[in-house]
Amino acid sequence: MNDSYFRKNIDAMDGYTPGEQPKVPGLIKLNTNENPYPPSPAVKRALLDLDYARLRLYPDPDADELRGAIAETFGLKLENILVGNGSDDILTIVTRAFVGEGQSVAFPSPTYSLYPVLAQLQGAASVPVPLDADFNLPGNFSEAAAVSRLIFLARPNAPTGVTYPKAQVEAVCAAAVKRKQVVFIDEAYADFADDNCVDLVNRFPNVVVSRTMSKSYSLAGLRLGWAMASAGLIAGMVKVKDSYNADLVSQTLAVAALRDQDYLAQTCATLRRCRGELAERLAGLGFKVAPSQANFLFASPPGGDGAGLFRYLKENKVLVRYFPGAATAAFARITVGTPEQIETLCRLCAAFVKG
Amino acid sequence: MNDSYFRKNIDAMDGYTPGEQPKVPGLIKLNTNENPYPPSPAVKRALLDLDYARLRLYPDPDADELRGAIAETFGLKLENILVGNGSDDILTIVTRAFVGEGQSVAFPSPTYSLYPVLAQLQGAASVPVPLDADFNLPGNFSEAAAVSRLIFLARPNAPTGVTYPKAQVEAVCAAAVKRKQVVFIDEAYADFADDNCVDLVNRFPNVVVSRTMSKSYSLAGLRLGWAMASAGLIAGMVKVKDSYNADLVSQTLAVAALRDQDYLAQTCATLRRCRGELAERLAGLGFKVAPSQANFLFASPPGGDGAGLFRYLKENKVLVRYFPGAATAAFARITVGTPEQIETLCRLCAAFVKG
Repeated sequence: MNDSYFRKNIDAMDGYTPGEQPKVPGLIKLNTNENPYPPSPAVKRALLDLDYARLRLYPDPDADELRGAIAETFGLKLENILVGNGSDDILTIVTRAFVGEGQSVAFPSPTYSLYPVLAQLQGAASVPVPLDADFNLPGNFSEAAAVSRLIFLARPNAPTGVTYPKAQVEAVCAAAVKRKQVVFIDEAYADFADDNCVDLVNRFPNVVVSRTMSKSYSLAGLRLGWAMASAGLIAGMVKVKDSYNADLVSQTLAVAALRDQDYLAQTCATLRRCRGELAERLAGLGFKVAPSQANFLFASPPGGDGAGLFRYLKENKVLVRYFPGAATAAFARITVGTPEQIETLCRLCAAFVKG
Repeated sequence: MNDSYFRKNIDAMDGYTPGEQPKVPGLIKLNTNENPYPPSPAVKRALLDLDYARLRLYPDPDADELRGAIAETFGLKLENILVGNGSDDILTIVTRAFVGEGQSVAFPSPTYSLYPVLAQLQGAASVPVPLDADFNLPGNFSEAAAVSRLIFLARPNAPTGVTYPKAQVEAVCAAAVKRKQVVFIDEAYADFADDNCVDLVNRFPNVVVSRTMSKSYSLAGLRLGWAMASAGLIAGMVKVKDSYNADLVSQTLAVAALRDQDYLAQTCATLRRCRGELAERLAGLGFKVAPSQANFLFASPPGGDGAGLFRYLKENKVLVRYFPGAATAAFARITVGTPEQIETLCRLCAAFVKG
C-alpha cells in the first residue's frame, strides 16, 4: 500500500514558487512584471457602479458579455473565446484537456517555470528544448518536440523578453498539425510587442493563443485571462473549466478595461519607451541586455553575477527576480517601472558595477 | 493515431451543466440555491473602500489575512486552511491531488452532479453508492467505497437536503484511514444545518471539510470557498492550486463577510424558519418533502411528476431545478426564497396539485 494519501506525482513534485509579494514599505517592486501605472479610469468607474447586492447571484458561467468584448477587440467570434481566472487558469485547463499521465509537454528553455509544474500535476513528462545562446528558438525545436501532446511557446518569452520570428512560430504550428499536437502561444506580454499571433487562431485548428489582464491592463489583482482558439478546441476546453471560473466583479471590470483601448495603447507606449531607455542605460553600464518586446528586461551585469546583482538591489530596497540555473544565472529579470523607479535602479546598478 | 487533439476521457465526457442563469425579467429564481437576501453591509463598505489602483498588483497568493479570519472563525490554524476560487476550485484541487487515471472516486447517489465530472476529468472512474429510499446513507457505504481513493460526502446532501448522522460520517472517516482514503465532506450548506463536521479536521488526518460563501454568505458572484484539513493534506493541496487562485477583491470582501458573523446568523435563522414554513405548507398540499437541513427543499408533488411541476412553475415564471433519473424524477429542488416568493410558489403548487 502507498504510504501517502497523495498521488505519486504530487508527492514527487515541489510546486510552483511565485515571485515574492512582500509587504515591505518603500520597496520598489520590479520582480513580478506588474504595471507601475493604475488600471484605466473606466475600471474605477465600473467598480464604483457595482451594486454589491448583485453578488448574491452566480456570475454568467459563459461570461458572454466579456467574451463579446474580447471577440470584438480581436475580430473573432464568441465561439473562439474562453475566459479564465487569470491566464494560469487557461494554462491549467489546456494542460488537463490535452495531456494525460505518461504523455509529455514540450517548451523552450528557459521559459515560464509554471509549464513543467503543470506537466507534473498531470503525471506527464516535460521536454525542455534549450534556446540558443541569444535565447532564440533553435532550428530543431519542432523535431525535439515531436512526441509531445502540447507545446508551450511564450511570445514574447519570459524571463528573456525575446520574441521568436512569427514565421518560425507558424512553421512550428504547421508541423504540429501533422502530428496532432496543440501549440499554446502564451501572449501574456504581447501588448508590449511589435506584433502578435492572434491571426493564427483562424488559420490553424490546433493553436491556442492566451492573453492576460495582469500586465498591460494593470489588473493582476483581478485574475482575468482568456484563450483564443478554433471553435472545436474551445468547445472541449469548456468541459474542463470550473463552471463559474470567472467571478462577477472580474467580468464586469474586465469589460470596462477592454473597452478603453486608448488607455491601454497609451500605457503600453509609455512602457515601451521606458524599456528602450532602460536598456540603453544598462548597456551603457556594460550590462548584456537581451532584446526585449515585453515589459521587463533580462540583463546580465559585467562579470555575470546575476545573483549578486539581485542581492545588492534587494539590500537597497529594489526587488528584481533571479532565476538559478546555467542558462539564467548570469542575469536578473527587471520589470520596467516608472521613470523615477528606473532612475533609482540605474543609480544602484552603476554602484554595483563599480563594486 | 488518435483523431482528436483531446485526451480520450475528455472527448468521452459531456461536461458539467450548471443550473440556468437566465436573464428573464420578473423571474423568481429558486433553481441554484442562491440566498434571496443581500450580503452583509460590511461587504458593501469593503467594496466602497477598495482602492482600484491596488488591482495593478498580484493578490497575496497565500491569502494570509483571509485564512487568518477563517482560522479564527473555526478555531483552527492557518496551516489547516486553503482558499479557493469557489468551493468548485477546492473540489478540483482535491480530485487532482488524490485521484489519478484508472483510480476511482466514490459518493452516495443522488448527490452533487459535479463529482462524477471531476472523476472523468482525471480519467478516473466513479462509484456511485445508492442512498436508501429516504435518501439516507446505506449501512454498506464504506464497503461499497472500499477501493476508491477519494470519497465525496455532501452534508447536508444536495439535491436532497438530508443530513447523514454525524456518527455515521465519523465511522466512514475511520474506515477510510485504514484504507488510506481521503474523505471530502462538502459543507456548502452547513450554515443552515443543526451541526457540522469541522471538528473532524483535528481528529482525522484524511478528512477535508469545505465551505463556500455562495449560499449562506450571499456571495455566489464572488467565487470564494475554502478547505479545512490536517496540515499535511493542506501542504500537498497547495502544490495543486493555481498560485493566485483567489483574487484581491474576493479576498478583501470575504474577510469583511466573515467578520460579520451576526449577520450570517440572522440570515440563516430567517431562512431556516422559512424552510420550515415552506415544508409544512407543501406537506399540507400533499407533497412528499425530504427533511432538509439546507436552504432548499427536495419535494415531490402528489402523483410524483417532478418534471411536470418544474415545467408548470417555469411557465409561470418560477424557476426550480429538476434532475432526471430514477431516484430523483419524482422531485423538484426548490430554493428557500423570501416570504413573498414562497407565497407565489405555494399558490402555484396548489394550482398544480388541483390540476
